[in-house]
Amino acid sequence: MSDTRPIGVFDSGLGGLTVVREMIRLMPGEKIVYLGDTARVPYGGRSPDTIRLFAEQDAAFLMSLDIKMLIVACNTISSVGLDAVRRVALDTPVIDVVLPGAKAAVMRTAEKKIGVIGTRATIGANAYANAIQDVQPNVKVFGQACPLFVPIVEEGLADGDIARLTVQHYLYRLVNIGIDVLILGCTHYPLLMEAIQETVGTRIQLIDSALWTAKEAQDVLIALNALSPDVSGGLDKSIFHVTDLTPNFESTAAAFLGVKLPRVEKISLDALVRGVPAPA
Amino acid sequence: MSDTRPIGVFDSGLGGLTVVREMIRLMPGEKIVYLGDTARVPYGGRSPDTIRLFAEQDAAFLMSLDIKMLIVACNTISSVGLDAVRRVALDTPVIDVVLPGAKAAVMRTAEKKIGVIGTRATIGANAYANAIQDVQPNVKVFGQACPLFVPIVEEGLADGDIARLTVQHYLYRLVNIGIDVLILGCTHYPLLMEAIQETVGTRIQLIDSALWTAKEAQDVLIALNALSPDVSGGLDKSIFHVTDLTPNFESTAAAFLGVKLPRVEKISLDALVRGVPAPA
Repeated sequence: MSDTRPIGVFDSGLGGLTVVREMIRLMPGEKIVYLGDTARVPYGGRSPDTIRLFAEQDAAFLMSLDIKMLIVACNTISSVGLDAVRRVALDTPVIDVVLPGAKAAVMRTAEKKIGVIGTRATIGANAYANAIQDVQPNVKVFGQACPLFVPIVEEGLADGDIARLTVQHYLYRLVNIGIDVLILGCTHYPLLMEAIQETVGTRIQLIDSALWTAKEAQDVLIALNALSPDVSGGLDKSIFHVTDLTPNFESTAAAFLGVKLPRVEKISLDALVRGVPAPA
Repeated sequence: MSDTRPIGVFDSGLGGLTVVREMIRLMPGEKIVYLGDTARVPYGGRSPDTIRLFAEQDAAFLMSLDIKMLIVACNTISSVGLDAVRRVALDTPVIDVVLPGAKAAVMRTAEKKIGVIGTRATIGANAYANAIQDVQPNVKVFGQACPLFVPIVEEGLADGDIARLTVQHYLYRLVNIGIDVLILGCTHYPLLMEAIQETVGTRIQLIDSALWTAKEAQDVLIALNALSPDVSGGLDKSIFHVTDLTPNFESTAAAFLGVKLPRVEKISLDALVRGVPAPA
């Protein structure tokens, strides 16, 4: 039994495309329907109540498109609003980005000291610490919010001096504590991988949750016998929805996905807020 | 004839409080009703269509509160969405932040070369250049978008090395061109004044549009004979509405206003979107 329906993936903006990138690499036959709430991004500095409200609206939109799985490709929503998403998803399997990254980190730490970086909301919700301690209670977790990383990546400055100075500013404390694994708890951060690795040194392993999330999605689809019968061509049939066509949209999207988005549709924010499915 | 009604002031977020700060200094008897759309801030990277939609919703909310004047304390909205705001405001006088800053800059340039810095939307809309050339056609205007300035200010890092390096990154071109006046075309930027002045040198005069906007509001109220009869105590009777109580809200607001906000009310974003006045 296989399932030809698409996989729904959503994020506050375009960062979730790093998860899509890994999914396409692992499962090139799967069709994706993506939603990036580019009219209201970023979520990472907002209150838990507002994040939950927005997450519910985003999830409801994708649920209206007959998907076989819902992937929360956003660390902020995974950390703060997963309960709201599950309420909307009903029986559809939900994959978040926190648990796969947490499991991968636990397998790799020898010192039993894991660092986590993310938005203010992600770190404030303590979701990684809770997930890690569920897997392995004697591991210590140290969180650090890095609010400037997302705008630096979106400004295309991930490789410059400003990025390096900012990485030092946020990470010197975690390095001094002696962590040996660092979870990149935001889908934007893989683009800062080089600047981060340079600063923390090679003794600290970086965990990119995008890759582990895609693997988890594949494992669950195999277990449910719900992989697509197609073995390629999924990307060409995928649709990428955004709530705003922002000026630097195309270049930012290409940086995250690695290729140009094949098909983009702008949906009305009003339709999203009112819970009405947008026109196809 | 005097007018005891409040003055409406709005911004995408909290930066507009720098305008309120100057208003209180000039007209301490005036009551303010403020709206900061903190659930959807920042507007500066969004498309013109989305900025106009949000601006219309914000203005409609304040118009429902019986105000005597509407101040657009946001450079992005002033540059991109002023037509939408005027449509909603009907006969109520509207003051924006672009024209007062443009007039002040023209009076001060000897070289006839003015620099303008702002968000991507503000610079893209060319509003300052148009306003300046309306006043004085033979002045050259050079714009530079500085998307990292707002997050740096909101992160409380306006005084550090990251701020100085970022200021250099954005401003070296304008300094080399030989401008002698620089308009700070975003209400967040006064908090970067020191880092900017240090980088551009004292030969370049900085224009803080918040101050000139407050003066313009005062001039218009005098002309309309609509100043409040009170000469003090306005701030204590003012109300500050936000669409989200974000975690670092209080400290950010205090940094912009100079004092703690006396009375804050969270309004529902849904009510704003649906055009329904929020509960008092």
